[in-house]
Amino acid sequence: MTSVSFAISFQDVAGAAHAIAPFAIRTPVFENDELNAICGRRVLIKFEGAQRTGSFKFRGACNRLLRLDPVARRAGVVAWSGGNHAQGIAAAAKMLDIPATVVMPQDAPWVKLANTRRLGAKVITYDRVHESREAIAIAISDSQGSTLVPSYDDPFVIAGQGTVGIELLDQASELGVELDQILVPCGGGGLAAGVAIAVRQRSPTTEIYIVEPAGFDDTIRALASGQPALAEPGASSICDALLAPAPGRLTFPINNALIAGGLIVTDEMVIKAIRFTVLSLKLVAEPGGAVALAAAMHGLLPRNERPCAVIISGSNIDPANLSYILSAQDR
Amino acid sequence: MTSVSFAISFQDVAGAAHAIAPFAIRTPVFENDELNAICGRRVLIKFEGAQRTGSFKFRGACNRLLRLDPVARRAGVVAWSGGNHAQGIAAAAKMLDIPATVVMPQDAPWVKLANTRRLGAKVITYDRVHESREAIAIAISDSQGSTLVPSYDDPFVIAGQGTVGIELLDQASELGVELDQILVPCGGGGLAAGVAIAVRQRSPTTEIYIVEPAGFDDTIRALASGQPALAEPGASSICDALLAPAPGRLTFPINNALIAGGLIVTDEMVIKAIRFTVLSLKLVAEPGGAVALAAAMHGLLPRNERPCAVIISGSNIDPANLSYILSAQDR
Repeated sequence: MTSVSFAISFQDVAGAAHAIAPFAIRTPVFENDELNAICGRRVLIKFEGAQRTGSFKFRGACNRLLRLDPVARRAGVVAWSGGNHAQGIAAAAKMLDIPATVVMPQDAPWVKLANTRRLGAKVITYDRVHESREAIAIAISDSQGSTLVPSYDDPFVIAGQGTVGIELLDQASELGVELDQILVPCGGGGLAAGVAIAVRQRSPTTEIYIVEPAGFDDTIRALASGQPALAEPGASSICDALLAPAPGRLTFPINNALIAGGLIVTDEMVIKAIRFTVLSLKLVAEPGGAVALAAAMHGLLPRNERPCAVIISGSNIDPANLSYILSAQDR
Repeated sequence: MTSVSFAISFQDVAGAAHAIAPFAIRTPVFENDELNAICGRRVLIKFEGAQRTGSFKFRGACNRLLRLDPVARRAGVVAWSGGNHAQGIAAAAKMLDIPATVVMPQDAPWVKLANTRRLGAKVITYDRVHESREAIAIAISDSQGSTLVPSYDDPFVIAGQGTVGIELLDQASELGVELDQILVPCGGGGLAAGVAIAVRQRSPTTEIYIVEPAGFDDTIRALASGQPALAEPGASSICDALLAPAPGRLTFPINNALIAGGLIVTDEMVIKAIRFTVLSLKLVAEPGGAVALAAAMHGLLPRNERPCAVIISGSNIDPANLSYILSAQDR
């Protein structure tokens, strides 16, 4: 195993933690008796819903924008996003007084569109079927001279997301817990890659598992074959935050080297995990944010009695959608 | 002002904090940019939904049960409760291996009944209109020799609830915040009285306001007149946790001496606060747990730019009820 080819090092994650500390929230870690009983082990829950903008994406966006020089800041930034990176960019840009434009699907959750606008970003919507978000964003970048900020394939973004891993290990340590496994939701793989880099340095025996929704298990299939893979054509999932079509160019080599395994969850498992989050944890999770919890609750990990952690990576869910999930009849 | 007549002293609260520390959770404090903007000041949110059993009531129940001698522990405990004290008693009794019986209204929220049973307590339901919960509980206590544990009118219970106040002041101090006001939900007044005793000692310039639902503002009217008062006959409220008919015998003298004022919220304000809790804070609050947040959000406090805190005191809400609240049409 060599780290030379990786996009980032542990020092980049530690640097990101230092850089974003004045802006980001140290999100809490919870533990729940009922969840421990279900899983047959201690499960720490790292709750990124409490992060600014309701997901971990603020961390990477903030770290990236902090590195822009004054000229680039004035020219502004542009990004495309299903909604959580959009809000992260918008919030960080607002704090740093940087103009921001975000290209978002017109069918993104209402709460994500509304919050991105509320935070002052210019939102341009596109039709996911007939238009290319990349093409729209690149055209804006070219015409305005603004910096394109990828949602995962960027070293500063990956390093920023990795601060979740440093924090989680610190908090586990404060609780006297040694984590055997950490379950991380995976879309483009930025959070997993950042956390994996952090954990390899700070707790090398801790295994990282990624969790993907069925049909969007492109990273898991790529890990299995060592080759690039794509999401299933025509697949659908309620996990709107995890619909990246393929592993990232920078994230995949890291994940390929450092991830212990992958777990796949169905929409039904995710719905049960969201209900549990609300009814027992008293927290809110969006579908993509709940996949790691869903995998733990449904026993998808190899049996093991040592403590593990799940990351609830985001909590931006439309009220109508959450209302529907809560009204399901499986009391 | 004399403290001689009070049921508890600061030392009782400090003792409770020490006693329950191995059992209770140090619940997190959150802050939210949107809430600060709405209120025009910093607002710390003390989230007791993260407490064991989803409300602060575990603290008082645990402190009370820890003081029982071995003979009393074997004989068991009995309580009546709308549901949060019931769960607190059940959880503490389970931890200490004490048999527990709880008398609960048959129309209590499903989640409260189910959790109390899940925690191993014997649940006896009664008809709120035609039966007396006190009479049922006292008959059980008499026949079984079990100890009756009141939900607020007990020194150990009040002291246990007061640990919320010590924790909140510690956490505010860690954040470098001096709290000007603390808003506390009020039913029988146990949480308010305990917090007031803690705060008077540790931060004497911090004012405590109680918040009650319209129609159940018995403590506020009693504070105004200095005389006992009753809830309005026939009043109804969605705040099932705050339907105590009158201020407590032990809690009222404390609150009468130490509370700065009272605020009254409507069901509509509470519903808006619950929606905000889910959509912006990414947390769950039950109606009675959300009254202090509702009062702050609706500007019921005297105008002031100094930091304040609200206690979200509980989060045990039926999924159907939360689903209904989230489907409201006031986007």
